[in-house]
Amino acid sequence: MKKTLHLELGERSYPIHIGAGLISQPDLYQPHIRGRQVMLVSNETVAPLYLKTVSEALSGYRLEQVILPDGEEFKTLDTLNLIFDALLKKRFNRSCCLVALGGGVVGDMTGFAAASYQRGVDFIQLPTTLLAQVDSSVGGKTGVNHALGKNMIGAFHQPRCVLADTNTLGTLDERQLSAGIAEVIKYGLIEDAGFFAWLENNMTRLLARDTQALMHAIERSCQCKADIVAADERENGKRALLNLGHTFGHAIETGMGYGNWLHGEGVAAGMAMAADLSARHGWIGHTDAERIRSLLVQARLPVDAPADISREQFLELMAVDKKTLDGGLRLILLDAIGQAKVCGNFDTGLLHQTLEHRLPPTGS
Amino acid sequence: MKKTLHLELGERSYPIHIGAGLISQPDLYQPHIRGRQVMLVSNETVAPLYLKTVSEALSGYRLEQVILPDGEEFKTLDTLNLIFDALLKKRFNRSCCLVALGGGVVGDMTGFAAASYQRGVDFIQLPTTLLAQVDSSVGGKTGVNHALGKNMIGAFHQPRCVLADTNTLGTLDERQLSAGIAEVIKYGLIEDAGFFAWLENNMTRLLARDTQALMHAIERSCQCKADIVAADERENGKRALLNLGHTFGHAIETGMGYGNWLHGEGVAAGMAMAADLSARHGWIGHTDAERIRSLLVQARLPVDAPADISREQFLELMAVDKKTLDGGLRLILLDAIGQAKVCGNFDTGLLHQTLEHRLPPTGS
Repeated sequence: MKKTLHLELGERSYPIHIGAGLISQPDLYQPHIRGRQVMLVSNETVAPLYLKTVSEALSGYRLEQVILPDGEEFKTLDTLNLIFDALLKKRFNRSCCLVALGGGVVGDMTGFAAASYQRGVDFIQLPTTLLAQVDSSVGGKTGVNHALGKNMIGAFHQPRCVLADTNTLGTLDERQLSAGIAEVIKYGLIEDAGFFAWLENNMTRLLARDTQALMHAIERSCQCKADIVAADERENGKRALLNLGHTFGHAIETGMGYGNWLHGEGVAAGMAMAADLSARHGWIGHTDAERIRSLLVQARLPVDAPADISREQFLELMAVDKKTLDGGLRLILLDAIGQAKVCGNFDTGLLHQTLEHRLPPTGS
Repeated sequence: MKKTLHLELGERSYPIHIGAGLISQPDLYQPHIRGRQVMLVSNETVAPLYLKTVSEALSGYRLEQVILPDGEEFKTLDTLNLIFDALLKKRFNRSCCLVALGGGVVGDMTGFAAASYQRGVDFIQLPTTLLAQVDSSVGGKTGVNHALGKNMIGAFHQPRCVLADTNTLGTLDERQLSAGIAEVIKYGLIEDAGFFAWLENNMTRLLARDTQALMHAIERSCQCKADIVAADERENGKRALLNLGHTFGHAIETGMGYGNWLHGEGVAAGMAMAADLSARHGWIGHTDAERIRSLLVQARLPVDAPADISREQFLELMAVDKKTLDGGLRLILLDAIGQAKVCGNFDTGLLHQTLEHRLPPTGS
């Protein structure tokens, strides 16, 4: 069982295959590898689970591997250099191919390494978390974090193909699964009220990892992302909608220290905050905001920012966000469930109310 | 007195202005800066000489600066991070502009920082060495070194404009001037026998920094480079010719430790070696090889590899070169003065002869 979507970007177009057992199929890789040299990049958690399967599927190539430490806190220039070290020690050339086996961190770093090694080589995404399958592996945003902001250093570099193997979701811990569902919910909120309603009716199946339900959720999410990226690859317009919940979420992630909140958890709380702020403006009803909170809670996701971050610190953290730096704070807010908008003309007083409506401090 | 060339690359086209006193003219910058934020990047040697002039020309902008240590040995990811630190501390946004004031190292690093900061912002090149004016500031190759190879990490990222101010060459030390002349001679060897002859007749004027002679040499060099880059931006073909002398030269630079041989010095010895190897094949006459050595010597440049590097070490160092990694050692060799070619079918025995025909060890 396999579905295939296509991201249409002229000569940079590529297929996104979704299904069970894909990473063991040599014929899915072969059309996308130009030379003989393949560098597998994974992390300490994922490698013991799937590296052998992938290595066997790629046994016809000159295969090397580099295993990174696991965690958002290692998404740095220093860790990136481990990939360059491996490529140069093994004398990889410009027709080599990097294969990213892991979640969003492995995918983003491998993609940036591929973008920068000898000024650009090929790479393939094998996302093993739901979040990576529905979001970070598709669309070509690659990069690393800086102490002063997430994803501040990077490149637009599209993969040659994406293999989203639903079997790999079987080993995902519950918290990671929920974090991925946050991004799935995001697509419903941005542009598909029907999908949002489907999620309300099928959340139990998703949490139980029902393969059919997962495949539908991944396919719908990837299609939404592929359409938006095809229309606006470099985020000069519509692509910004994909950042729904992310300005709040990045501030939470950074403020709490990378790795303490999962990216999807930050986005979940951020979407609830975006809904809250939209409701305070009267752009959506309070019942809609409540429906959104409720679906996020059903998905076992946080819906409030931690009180450990003061309002001033929050505003400070949001001010360094990429979307904010471009002339004033702009947020992705909602006109309806299924209709997001880029918004610079919100009421600052109402934003402060949203920022103060939060959980009590940790430990209290 | 100002000449302007254009590098034609569709929407990435840009002007190359050549002349005396250009960096003090606000109207040469203004059309190429989209926002208000400008980050001046320079080094400890160049900043005291020209930063004030540039700052005054850009006084209408929100100006910040970052001063890097001087030298090829600092062309690393760690130094690059100093630029990212400055950009993030000052909250620079995606419509900011970086201005590279310095030689090739400053230009390559600033360009790569611009390519990677928030996945790509604008930059302007103000090359202050002859080498940077005739070569590295034009064409969009940016990057940093890795301990295992030069320029192995980087991006293709074109500047918005290049201001080659001949006044800045007045403070260049003689060794740096000669290193720049090496790249000028390269263009004559690649495709312009008439220009090579002009250099034979005008080397004294160039070494005396005669403005007219310098302008002619810079203009002819930039035109040659602009034509080649316009035809092959990402080095899939003809652009490789610009690497004449560079595979030998990079091996010398790396083998002797970054910063001990100047890049242009390595290229000079490399071109003499390429000429020697071409003559051993009978592709050029020995008198042509002698003419090339003689012009390089006249320009006060080295024409032999240091004997400190053994033949085996030389071959090892050349094997990690980008051009070599792509399937076997390929060299840029000569069919005539003014006619270079990419060549994989040379005689290995003759290459060994070229590598062994060298200076006695240091100190002997």
